[in-house]
Amino acid sequence: MSNPSLLILPGDGIGPEVMAEVRKIIGWFDARRGLKFDVSEDLVGGAAYDVHGTPLTDETMAKAQEADAVLLGAVGGPKYDSLDFSVKPERGLLRLRKEMDLYANLRPAQCFDALADFSSLKKDIVAGLDIMIVRELTSGIYFGEPRGIIKEGNERVGINTQRYTESEIARVARSAFELARKRGNKVCSMEKANVMESGILWRDVVQEVHDAEYPDVELSHMYADAGAMQLVRAPKQFDVIVTDNLFGDLLSDAAAMLTGSLGMLPSASLGAPMANGRPKALYEPVHGSAPDIAGQGKANPCACILSFAMALRYSFDQGEEATRLERAVEMVLADGVRTADLMQAGDTAPASTSDMGDAVIAAL
Amino acid sequence: MSNPSLLILPGDGIGPEVMAEVRKIIGWFDARRGLKFDVSEDLVGGAAYDVHGTPLTDETMAKAQEADAVLLGAVGGPKYDSLDFSVKPERGLLRLRKEMDLYANLRPAQCFDALADFSSLKKDIVAGLDIMIVRELTSGIYFGEPRGIIKEGNERVGINTQRYTESEIARVARSAFELARKRGNKVCSMEKANVMESGILWRDVVQEVHDAEYPDVELSHMYADAGAMQLVRAPKQFDVIVTDNLFGDLLSDAAAMLTGSLGMLPSASLGAPMANGRPKALYEPVHGSAPDIAGQGKANPCACILSFAMALRYSFDQGEEATRLERAVEMVLADGVRTADLMQAGDTAPASTSDMGDAVIAAL
Ligand SMILES: CC(C)[C@H](C(=O)O)[C@@H](O)C(=O)O
Ligand SMILES: CC(C)[C@H](C(=O)O)[C@@H](O)C(=O)O
Repeated sequence: MSNPSLLILPGDGIGPEVMAEVRKIIGWFDARRGLKFDVSEDLVGGAAYDVHGTPLTDETMAKAQEADAVLLGAVGGPKYDSLDFSVKPERGLLRLRKEMDLYANLRPAQCFDALADFSSLKKDIVAGLDIMIVRELTSGIYFGEPRGIIKEGNERVGINTQRYTESEIARVARSAFELARKRGNKVCSMEKANVMESGILWRDVVQEVHDAEYPDVELSHMYADAGAMQLVRAPKQFDVIVTDNLFGDLLSDAAAMLTGSLGMLPSASLGAPMANGRPKALYEPVHGSAPDIAGQGKANPCACILSFAMALRYSFDQGEEATRLERAVEMVLADGVRTADLMQAGDTAPASTSDMGDAVIAAL
Repeated sequence: MSNPSLLILPGDGIGPEVMAEVRKIIGWFDARRGLKFDVSEDLVGGAAYDVHGTPLTDETMAKAQEADAVLLGAVGGPKYDSLDFSVKPERGLLRLRKEMDLYANLRPAQCFDALADFSSLKKDIVAGLDIMIVRELTSGIYFGEPRGIIKEGNERVGINTQRYTESEIARVARSAFELARKRGNKVCSMEKANVMESGILWRDVVQEVHDAEYPDVELSHMYADAGAMQLVRAPKQFDVIVTDNLFGDLLSDAAAMLTGSLGMLPSASLGAPMANGRPKALYEPVHGSAPDIAGQGKANPCACILSFAMALRYSFDQGEEATRLERAVEMVLADGVRTADLMQAGDTAPASTSDMGDAVIAAL
């Protein structure tokens, strides 16, 4: 049997730097734990546009479809701001999500003990925080038609369409309930059913799936605006949150920021099982391409490293190895190793991107 | 000349209680400052549904159109959760906003010195916070067509449409720039131009209005997800934020919660000038109807009282009297008067709704 395949797409900005550290980690698991992967690498985002005139070539798309898992760095940057919408770096990422049908985006918002002081929130509000946001990722207003900018009389009109089918809602709800069963057994679903019919359908379908298949999980519903408030007020009330693509974009970013350490947060985007039983999967850090610090060895590779840990868990059935890697990152933090993003007044010189990667390997 | 007219719509839940305190304040301004209003009162939301089977009658709508200002308490409650979408309490409020064409929703997020400890955020992050969120209120996905739940094959499909015309964007942008000139002279516009064409048009039009009419105001653009993050991380970086109806709903609620005292926050919704030069206007607290504490004298009337202060400022050209009222509220807080929502561990018995109203009058 051949080794599982891993497609690496470093992308733009700090993507390549943080990915270099992940490659060290992959090397360690190969040499020391006998975990072998067939690793290949390709371009996405602005990096692909610069070479091919498109943020994702059909060839790369095909490779991603065949890979057992895709690991992505980050896309985008001011250099590409004036590009046409259709070739912006983000379109490469959105095409991957859509064509791989990665409907469940898992975004843990976890507050590391060693970093609790780092949050803009009071320590008692965030210490021990451990939320999982499950964001629908392949539908809603990101992809609905009609869309575009049209001319009506003398005026331009911008149009996008929010569209959710029953089965699109049901499948991501199932992902949330399954995850909840392995965690705190609690799901809060967020929409604007008081204003949007798509929100009414969302609420109804989540409730139906719950009643028919997951009556043992505690389910509540909240309007998304109240959800944004409650995340700021008392985030520890939540276990799993399930919400649509657009609300999930804002709410998961707000939740990530609560932890105070965006450079620490991974994500997984999962689709349906492939022939080999593995889900289609793409893993990426929550942070962006951070063009302002790119190429300077300042970036924190932990989010990307922890994204690889999620790959070990969700794609390769290596839960124990994933935990080993996560523990190593926690140990390094507890030891006081800090990249520039984690520095506080009074701290001495920061660890570089590769210092941090080396420290994780040492801890492993 | 007749007195300016004020239509009071107490609505549901704690609406009537907090509005009773505002009536005392109105009485004080009449008796002590010679400010006379023709005050009338009517039903909205669940309260209107209970009597008329609709959350807003045509008669009340007509009165609102003619009033110099409308003051609303709150709408909604679990009692009405199972009602059909078309007669839910919220539809009454949305109809007022839409038919009065109240396109600019002003939501100050201000942290009162006496209450800074109350925030879930660290004191240095929020002390002195003073942001104004200008939310577009009459268009976007709240009102766009087509909308509804349709049947496609065996599946239900939920549909809503985000739709913005150039002039809808331009007029709310102007409101934001005008306000900025009277404050910190800085506007940050938020959308998802990296994902939505309506966001591209939003960004372009805001920039065009800026360049043509307000080049003196500092303008920046931010993706709404990054905006949600930055509001949590470092809210004091903002002065005026302008954004669409749906993003504004979430972002203004998150911003409100930063202050830690939701019961303190007013809002104004303004439209075009009427024949008498006054803008169409509706004022309401940011908090909801809080059915869990309704009728118990526990509600904080300050948000509704401060909404009346906004009415004095924006509808009746009584900026000094508005400031007088705002100062009175601050004094009362500084004196340690606290309704139940503002209690902290160790505090003694809370002030009731009417205690708080009386204290504000005493301070006046
Ligand atoms: C880069 C962008 C297209 C993307 C999104 O809006 O989904 C990002 O914000 C994210 O959350 O992964
Ligand atoms: C009550 C509801 C319809 C309303 C909205 O969504 O606009 C409320 O959340 C608000 O922000 O005023």
